[in-house]
Amino acid sequence: MTRIYNFSSGPAVLPEPVLRRAQEAIWDLDGTGIGVLEHSHRGKAFMAVLERTEARLRALAGIPDSYAVLFLQGGASTQFFQVPMSFLAGRDGATADYCHTGIWSKKAIAEARRFGAVHVACSSEADQFRHIPAAAETTWSSAPAYVHFTSNNTIYGTQWTSEPAAPAGAPLVCDASSDIFSRPIDVTKYAMIYAGAQKNLGPSGVTLVIIRKDFLETGSRDLPAMLQYRTHAGEQSMFNTPPTFGIYIIGEVAAWIAEQGGLAAMDERNRAKAKLLYDYLDTSRLVRGTVRADSRSLMNVVFRCVDERLEPELVARATARGLDGLKGHRTVGGMRASLYNAFPIEGVRALVDFLRELEAERS
Amino acid sequence: MTRIYNFSSGPAVLPEPVLRRAQEAIWDLDGTGIGVLEHSHRGKAFMAVLERTEARLRALAGIPDSYAVLFLQGGASTQFFQVPMSFLAGRDGATADYCHTGIWSKKAIAEARRFGAVHVACSSEADQFRHIPAAAETTWSSAPAYVHFTSNNTIYGTQWTSEPAAPAGAPLVCDASSDIFSRPIDVTKYAMIYAGAQKNLGPSGVTLVIIRKDFLETGSRDLPAMLQYRTHAGEQSMFNTPPTFGIYIIGEVAAWIAEQGGLAAMDERNRAKAKLLYDYLDTSRLVRGTVRADSRSLMNVVFRCVDERLEPELVARATARGLDGLKGHRTVGGMRASLYNAFPIEGVRALVDFLRELEAERS
Repeated sequence: MTRIYNFSSGPAVLPEPVLRRAQEAIWDLDGTGIGVLEHSHRGKAFMAVLERTEARLRALAGIPDSYAVLFLQGGASTQFFQVPMSFLAGRDGATADYCHTGIWSKKAIAEARRFGAVHVACSSEADQFRHIPAAAETTWSSAPAYVHFTSNNTIYGTQWTSEPAAPAGAPLVCDASSDIFSRPIDVTKYAMIYAGAQKNLGPSGVTLVIIRKDFLETGSRDLPAMLQYRTHAGEQSMFNTPPTFGIYIIGEVAAWIAEQGGLAAMDERNRAKAKLLYDYLDTSRLVRGTVRADSRSLMNVVFRCVDERLEPELVARATARGLDGLKGHRTVGGMRASLYNAFPIEGVRALVDFLRELEAERS
Repeated sequence: MTRIYNFSSGPAVLPEPVLRRAQEAIWDLDGTGIGVLEHSHRGKAFMAVLERTEARLRALAGIPDSYAVLFLQGGASTQFFQVPMSFLAGRDGATADYCHTGIWSKKAIAEARRFGAVHVACSSEADQFRHIPAAAETTWSSAPAYVHFTSNNTIYGTQWTSEPAAPAGAPLVCDASSDIFSRPIDVTKYAMIYAGAQKNLGPSGVTLVIIRKDFLETGSRDLPAMLQYRTHAGEQSMFNTPPTFGIYIIGEVAAWIAEQGGLAAMDERNRAKAKLLYDYLDTSRLVRGTVRADSRSLMNVVFRCVDERLEPELVARATARGLDGLKGHRTVGGMRASLYNAFPIEGVRALVDFLRELEAERS
């Protein structure tokens, strides 16, 4: 069977060499005679997988020893409550600042409000989330317990080009689920970065958490063991049985990224892919981008037909052509092309060619 | 590479036909041109996987429509706190009853105590957990909020032969992580059954929860969305991105169990496998079982050498022979042979042959 171009927003396309290695590992991991799904998490073979995965991630992003690298479960949706439960609840007078740039930040804010005071430092809601708020649109509270932002917004197709200019000393917490390891990152600017794996890193079901050790130690102790970051940091993510296969895949994806040249090379590739499509959108009479130019995501390109009635046909014909997953999120409609690390530039060319054909047909 | 006999206590051996199908699905799921790890959880292909998985589980265990079948994350360790957080916390005068049969119940009890009054209705701790408490050893509180037990104890090698005789009307909650679907089960006796998948069902990273709908509706609403069972029941486990690959594997394992003849056939096979090993242990001069005969687990056979100094050599020689994962849990020492559904009877024969040889060598 020929594989097709998968523009899905997540779970999403993975590098084919990783899939080939995974096929072998499912039957027999590293010549052990036991498959990767079947190895005890406490055995030598899986411990080697865990350690090499962590080492590869640390090398890729330059994660210092002062940060723990954790493999958790429950996705970003679990981090939405675990962060305020740990770092906001029960602190008199504390306020957490949130940058509101879409549905994911909305959910994070809603969970945080269960645990304490939340200040929405900036919001692009009035603009239907079509841009990333500038510093001039942002008001921080005094001494926030932490500052939370969503680095890339899958649904609206916006992305921060750099970290928000949070007040000095405020711990910066980032939901990087949809752009982690798509470009170089200075981890030392953050107290914590978390990401569901299912876009740039691996399958769904594993959450990568990169967290400064002195920050995690400030977390509440009045919580179930599973909800304290220190529990997992103290046991190398092995307090309970971790999602072993997901960790294995992340390790293989990290090796693949390194083979491609690391995060700088990913950034270059991702810029080239997104540029192909945005350049076409900027000149097309068929389709148009929906996001302000300075806020465009390199991961998720959201666009509409100039005549929106054409959209169902466009999506159906694209699908028939082997360009899958282009239908936009139900809340915004239109189309969305997700171009994560593993998405090949040939797929973007195929999409642009298809759109050009359709445009020619219509003119 | 030849696959070897994997006696691991979990993650554990999976059926080889399932692994073969998974190898194909990783490249291309059901002829879609997209691998199972890469499909959007909201797309048609994965929705079909989710629906067939649930349907197969319902058919296997006769799960009525009055129960929800949920695929969650975080393992049994998450259920240890989510259950009392939902069904014990904030209820004046409420007490939850726990049957204490080992390390897993100990952890469950510790988490429950954060949320309310816990009554240990029975305990085999004084006996180093070498038996399952009888009704005569058990004292229930009046009208417990729920009764919790661990149906199989991986570390000690004990298993309940049937449900504890809880007071009429008390919701029965079972951690069935290590024996779920190893034998027929009358789901209607339970308010809730939960199980980490990584023994009899699939890979680590997905938790199966079977919960009566009227029971789940009694759960607290003053909790993060992710920690309310109703959230997941209301969204068919799709409130957030579920662990799609784990769900796929559970579906394939369920199909395999059905092909083998269903849960009754599993029970028959599991009894035959365990009997082979227990019969040998009962007559051996080299090794002996550690568990009271009426409480022996069909899943995890725990044994010691009569001369315990021989144990490291036994384990090392077994490993060299392709009999892997026999070393007992660090808290009890000795050996443990885990014989979950997918473990083949040939492997048990190979182990008994090996032990007989060693015994002959020593006599």
